[in-house]
Amino acid sequence: MSTEPGTVRPGGRTARVRAAVLRAAGDVLAEQGFAHLDLADVARRAEVGKTTVYRRWGTVTGLVADLLTDMAEQSLPRTETGSVRDDLRANAALVQRTLADPRQGALFRAVIAAAACDSRTASALRRFYDVRVAEWAPCVEQAVARGELPVGTDASEVVRAVSAPLYYALLTTGVAPGAGDADRAAEAAVAAAAAGVYVGLSA
Amino acid sequence: MSTEPGTVRPGGRTARVRAAVLRAAGDVLAEQGFAHLDLADVARRAEVGKTTVYRRWGTVTGLVADLLTDMAEQSLPRTETGSVRDDLRANAALVQRTLADPRQGALFRAVIAAAACDSRTASALRRFYDVRVAEWAPCVEQAVARGELPVGTDASEVVRAVSAPLYYALLTTGVAPGAGDADRAAEAAVAAAAAGVYVGLSA
Repeated sequence: MSTEPGTVRPGGRTARVRAAVLRAAGDVLAEQGFAHLDLADVARRAEVGKTTVYRRWGTVTGLVADLLTDMAEQSLPRTETGSVRDDLRANAALVQRTLADPRQGALFRAVIAAAACDSRTASALRRFYDVRVAEWAPCVEQAVARGELPVGTDASEVVRAVSAPLYYALLTTGVAPGAGDADRAAEAAVAAAAAGVYVGLSA
Repeated sequence: MSTEPGTVRPGGRTARVRAAVLRAAGDVLAEQGFAHLDLADVARRAEVGKTTVYRRWGTVTGLVADLLTDMAEQSLPRTETGSVRDDLRANAALVQRTLADPRQGALFRAVIAAAACDSRTASALRRFYDVRVAEWAPCVEQAVARGELPVGTDASEVVRAVSAPLYYALLTTGVAPGAGDADRAAEAAVAAAAAGVYVGLSA
């Protein structure tokens, strides 16, 4: 674990240990998948004592849940351009770049696969997406306030609609989405929202 | 394995063995996931000789690939109502019912999870969706011919757009989509297609 200035997260030893352990856990997930995740192996890769890892994270699912919490905390803030089309294009581009990144794309596939078999991972994954959707929903709310989208549009549903085709492509075809797919995902969500498809969902 | 009249698929013993084995494989996937799929266990559940199963399917991934081939063959034909909105609502309802069915929904989650870690399963899954998309694409092509959607609309992409939010919801939240989600998925795809979002994709 590096201790050179500028390469260490703030927060002292506890935060450095967490960063190293989560990095190692993410590497194993991306390279080998959830089935190969093992606390002793993660401790070795992170150069952290095995006892520390067992005491702090307890189980493999506890470790993945904490990794998802960290991913939500570390993820980028929304873009606000003043136009919902450009905001959602920025959102789609961010999701697309994440899924097309070899490490990040593999990591998301591994965590989504794990969530299919494990309810604690499923809850952690749901919280991760709730945080990301809540971060971007104001772009849609502002568009409604500006009169770009109909009153009553469900902002969260529009944000989810942008991500859906990008994840669907990756998960069902195994092929990462490209920049054109991202633009199309944003344009489709805006067109559907403008047509009133996402109005009155709670009714 | 039942041999009562009317409970046996046509095609003789080979077809009956295949049906029993694929049924058992689907049960294991839905109940326990890909990691628990084992040829000897499937043979026992299907009341078929272990040697037959090993000789015919060879590996667990070979068995899942054949299951996906069978699912594509058995799946329902498209609905043609004369209106693209109603055709795609029927498509969305079919996908939604499949994903909301306890056995089928769990089976799809298990196979998608397996595809994340295994390239042969990923190829078989891709072929399954290719077959399903090709079955429904004519609904969109006919809508273009009738003047309901713009010339140059990519029919396959519109069909995929209907499924995307339904799968996305299930895979990222673990919650099966409902009938309202299905209608919204179809309406969103029609609105985006009508706005020209899916025109000129091969350009």
